[in-house]
Amino acid sequence: MDEAQFITALWVVGILAEAMTGALAAGRRQMDLFGVVIVGCVTAIGGGTVRDLLIGNYPLVWIAHVEYLLAIAVAALLTVAIAPVMRYLSRLFLVIDALGLAVFSVIGAQKTLALGLNPLVAVVMGVVTGVFGGVIRDIFCQSLPLVFHRELYAAVALFTAGLYVLLDHLKVATDLSLLLCLGLGFLFRLLAIRRRWTLPRFHYQESAH
Amino acid sequence: MDEAQFITALWVVGILAEAMTGALAAGRRQMDLFGVVIVGCVTAIGGGTVRDLLIGNYPLVWIAHVEYLLAIAVAALLTVAIAPVMRYLSRLFLVIDALGLAVFSVIGAQKTLALGLNPLVAVVMGVVTGVFGGVIRDIFCQSLPLVFHRELYAAVALFTAGLYVLLDHLKVATDLSLLLCLGLGFLFRLLAIRRRWTLPRFHYQESAH
Amino acid sequence: MDEAQFITALWVVGILAEAMTGALAAGRRQMDLFGVVIVGCVTAIGGGTVRDLLIGNYPLVWIAHVEYLLAIAVAALLTVAIAPVMRYLSRLFLVIDALGLAVFSVIGAQKTLALGLNPLVAVVMGVVTGVFGGVIRDIFCQSLPLVFHRELYAAVALFTAGLYVLLDHLKVATDLSLLLCLGLGFLFRLLAIRRRWTLPRFHYQESAH
Repeated sequence: MDEAQFITALWVVGILAEAMTGALAAGRRQMDLFGVVIVGCVTAIGGGTVRDLLIGNYPLVWIAHVEYLLAIAVAALLTVAIAPVMRYLSRLFLVIDALGLAVFSVIGAQKTLALGLNPLVAVVMGVVTGVFGGVIRDIFCQSLPLVFHRELYAAVALFTAGLYVLLDHLKVATDLSLLLCLGLGFLFRLLAIRRRWTLPRFHYQESAH
Repeated sequence: MDEAQFITALWVVGILAEAMTGALAAGRRQMDLFGVVIVGCVTAIGGGTVRDLLIGNYPLVWIAHVEYLLAIAVAALLTVAIAPVMRYLSRLFLVIDALGLAVFSVIGAQKTLALGLNPLVAVVMGVVTGVFGGVIRDIFCQSLPLVFHRELYAAVALFTAGLYVLLDHLKVATDLSLLLCLGLGFLFRLLAIRRRWTLPRFHYQESAH
Repeated sequence: MDEAQFITALWVVGILAEAMTGALAAGRRQMDLFGVVIVGCVTAIGGGTVRDLLIGNYPLVWIAHVEYLLAIAVAALLTVAIAPVMRYLSRLFLVIDALGLAVFSVIGAQKTLALGLNPLVAVVMGVVTGVFGGVIRDIFCQSLPLVFHRELYAAVALFTAGLYVLLDHLKVATDLSLLLCLGLGFLFRLLAIRRRWTLPRFHYQESAH
């Protein structure tokens, strides 16, 4: 298995895990099976889709390879079937989701650099890829997007994508760079959850007058 | 009137009906006339627009033919004028909406096949075309998208687009295929409403512990 | 300073002001600093981004010039720092926002005409540019979009973009046209706020039966 296959394998694990968290979010809103599939799909591929629309990177991955979309739909439906077990797996899911976040951020940065765009744009697109699936999921489920007010999540995407772009700039070998970014991004997210690291929140209220 | 004109005529009826249901949704939220027009527009053309952005099919229909957008805006405003009568027309609207759903699904699949994309992508795009106008309408109106938890709606789009793609694959003559898809999709939706057919819903709650 | 530099300067003032109103909206929802930055960004550049996606105008401005995105992020974070002062500046912000609305509408129309699209499409894109940043902000913050039910806002965008397209059609010199559109659009918005001009609202309720 070479580098590209390795990252694709991790990406597939990531989108399937995201599909399952999307399905659970739909279940909390008591959606029907179709809602479960759609929310699962947008959670899994929403971030990459927004990225590719913004940078004009056609065709979209899941349109060129519709088999990924089918796998995502199956994963979402499977979640319904195994829902009683899911609550015992919530820790496992946090771990897979942390890995997925790191992978998505790296892939987002990588694809943007491959198009010859500005390194800063690559960092932004890493964040978009890591974060926007969850944002669209929460909008479809009428929730305030989690990533805007919970433990470090987008910050992990920013760190991971930023590190990848930096190492690319320093011409570090790609396999070493991948290892570092995925490892450190993954650890950072797990630590953020365990230590309940959060960013400061901004409370703003107009004064009464 | 040839085949293409026939389906365009049905499409125009469909987008005007969707514009009117969008206007009513805006009215339930007591929006002003501008909100009525915008929600009417996104309801009518949102599904096709999302599809064309996803498959990179430029220019968008309503940008190449802005007269459709004007007609949609007029239909939305007209809805305000005739609102007192609208509640007596709700059955008529369900019927037109059912026809529109079938037409949108067929057109979505047809346009995707015409671009040479995978037949499965064509089915997905049929569903996107049929369903996403309503999803965006509900998000703009701060409602949980109806299509995620009501009678078979997206499932009708899936059936209709799937049947169209299947008949296309079997090289059935287009006029016969259109007749079958529109007729059966339309009937399926009407039956779903009358018999209150629904998909199973997924209730998920984390256990207290 | 030539014409293009002048309008770019006004545009920068406009996006920075929008970034700050986005940050305040995030603060009302007690988002964390990352949420503040993201909501600030989508408020500032959401309208132009939606426009460019719809007309296929790649690359997006903030991707070709990522320094604007950085400035927006800084403005959003700065807003948190100076929040205690912000409530005394609310009038100033209404004025800058009114200017920004006029500038965004003109730019939206201008860019669309420059692509050789239909003048009516240019008017629509002026409105999209002026309005959709606020729409996305409100959706991210789980509010009913303000522009759908408050004082004339979208109507000002429609007037400004319409006037620009009309003057362009009449071959009025661009500098005179810019002056007229920006001046009148700005005044129109200020008057709408002061006199509390609103569009009629549409109240629709299904009858009980």
